[in-house]
Amino acid sequence: MSSDTSGINPRFSKKTLHRPDPDTLIKGILKGDITVLSRGITFIESSKEEDQAGKHRIIQALLPYTGQSLRIGITGIPGAGKSTLIEALGLELISQGHKVAVLAVDPSSQLSKGSILGDKTRMEQLSRHPNAYIRPTPSAGTMGGVARHTREAMLLCEAAGFDIILIETVGVGQSETAVHSMTDLFLLLAIPGTGDELQGIKRGIMEMADIIFINKADINPEKVRQTQKQLENALHFFPLHASEQPVQVLTGSAIQKPTVAELCQSILKYAQAIRNSGYFESQRKEQSVWWFKETLDQEILKRFYQQNKNNQMVDHLRQQVSEGKLDPFQAADQVMKAWK
Amino acid sequence: MSSDTSGINPRFSKKTLHRPDPDTLIKGILKGDITVLSRGITFIESSKEEDQAGKHRIIQALLPYTGQSLRIGITGIPGAGKSTLIEALGLELISQGHKVAVLAVDPSSQLSKGSILGDKTRMEQLSRHPNAYIRPTPSAGTMGGVARHTREAMLLCEAAGFDIILIETVGVGQSETAVHSMTDLFLLLAIPGTGDELQGIKRGIMEMADIIFINKADINPEKVRQTQKQLENALHFFPLHASEQPVQVLTGSAIQKPTVAELCQSILKYAQAIRNSGYFESQRKEQSVWWFKETLDQEILKRFYQQNKNNQMVDHLRQQVSEGKLDPFQAADQVMKAWK
Repeated sequence: MSSDTSGINPRFSKKTLHRPDPDTLIKGILKGDITVLSRGITFIESSKEEDQAGKHRIIQALLPYTGQSLRIGITGIPGAGKSTLIEALGLELISQGHKVAVLAVDPSSQLSKGSILGDKTRMEQLSRHPNAYIRPTPSAGTMGGVARHTREAMLLCEAAGFDIILIETVGVGQSETAVHSMTDLFLLLAIPGTGDELQGIKRGIMEMADIIFINKADINPEKVRQTQKQLENALHFFPLHASEQPVQVLTGSAIQKPTVAELCQSILKYAQAIRNSGYFESQRKEQSVWWFKETLDQEILKRFYQQNKNNQMVDHLRQQVSEGKLDPFQAADQVMKAWK
Repeated sequence: MSSDTSGINPRFSKKTLHRPDPDTLIKGILKGDITVLSRGITFIESSKEEDQAGKHRIIQALLPYTGQSLRIGITGIPGAGKSTLIEALGLELISQGHKVAVLAVDPSSQLSKGSILGDKTRMEQLSRHPNAYIRPTPSAGTMGGVARHTREAMLLCEAAGFDIILIETVGVGQSETAVHSMTDLFLLLAIPGTGDELQGIKRGIMEMADIIFINKADINPEKVRQTQKQLENALHFFPLHASEQPVQVLTGSAIQKPTVAELCQSILKYAQAIRNSGYFESQRKEQSVWWFKETLDQEILKRFYQQNKNNQMVDHLRQQVSEGKLDPFQAADQVMKAWK
């Protein structure tokens, strides 16, 4: 340590204590140190300008140690039993020798300031297990920001040796597309009931599912079987996935070990199938390129709209378009003409 | 005519003959002159710089006379009988006092240089009717360009007095979203068969349909009824539309007048329902604002990527991201830093 940074100035020493050193974080994460991993993820979430170079350094250094895990997105409406299932599934995977990290994307917590994983007591056994790591929802921000934090947290977990990443989301739209675009497999947790009763699941989410698990078969096995049949019929009207794997509809209960083991088996089989077909690799590449293009496009547009002059003109024209006084294409032409 | 623009220079006189005068076009279209309407639509499709001011003038002058029609998107896989149905539906609507314009969006014709409506003989009766206007596919271009031309052609048809606009598209994805975003009602033409057999219909299209018409009930009424039942069951798993109208599944045959009349009735009832609920108006506003935002965003990005320097850097970084050597978010950061 240089003499410049030591000394007795309390404000300065506080600052050095709280700003983690990127190299220390990198080393600790690669050793699999959970405490350092947590500090690393918090650092990655920093929006401070002075932290950006360090973040870049950490991600670049860890990148060669990432990508080897199986990334699983899990969604379902509130009350479907996601926490219970994730705990059971996590413990099952650990019993088979895996190391499991659980992350969450929850845009709703931006409003409520709550967190779907904040209540760790709901996954008490899993959270205490040395081969598990549970990370609560990233703090408030735009959907794009939250998605970025989640994807980067995933990379850090992989570098720390976790080979299964579960990303939980709440089944109300918006975040599912983001999670779908960063995972290898998308698991939908459903409960028995007719389609109409499942309408808490938003448009498009059903189509993303690679595996659907109908939970609570312990309570009403007959209704669960009925739902399974209806769902299987309905799925014929959904186009085949790019993976070319048929969607599986399983039934069971998060509190019955054999059905959780069966789900676990299906997940690992699916992973093996897409690895064998080459889809695993090609999808990962596509996802990376997609995130690059998507992020870049959003940043370009953000910069454009942040220019106050553009914004005022756009607002004015949008109003005219909305009132039917101006054609939308003509209005766009006007903005582009004004923007040199 | 000024003496400057007359004279015997044949090249000059040819030019004035072929470039239509905006005011003449506006007047002719408002009179409902079909020949002028055709010339107007061709003019609107011009990408020549010198025509842009004239196009703007035409659209702005006609805008107050647009928006009163019912806009219907029609899709279905090739072989479902779209042309036959459109002719039958068009004639039925005309018999009820409507004036019907038929447009088409067909991105595939960009490759084949063919056209789904080019073969007018398939709608012989309708194309000869004085209260009908059939416009073949706009010429090749980007999807955004084709969509713009179609939407503007629709405005010109409305200004010419057509109160029903049918926009045909081919059910292979891509163009359906564009057509869905410029119509009040989306009609899916299906044929009997299991869901798997209907998979020619691409992801998301089923979800857009407000009315599904299962055609060819004259050939196999039993199978058609079966498909209807299966589809109705499957639809329970699709979320309710923003219009809050339930999706209707009808059966019939494009060559059986009573079933076409029934379809016609359903369409007009749906239109009345969304007019009464206020959804018609609010959706139109939303669509206009969406096209403005969408077009503007695309133009901003196009201009950015057209800058050669940006493009080369982006290509290089995309390659690195694709090979897993660079994190997609970090790569986007790099581009934004370089772009001042």
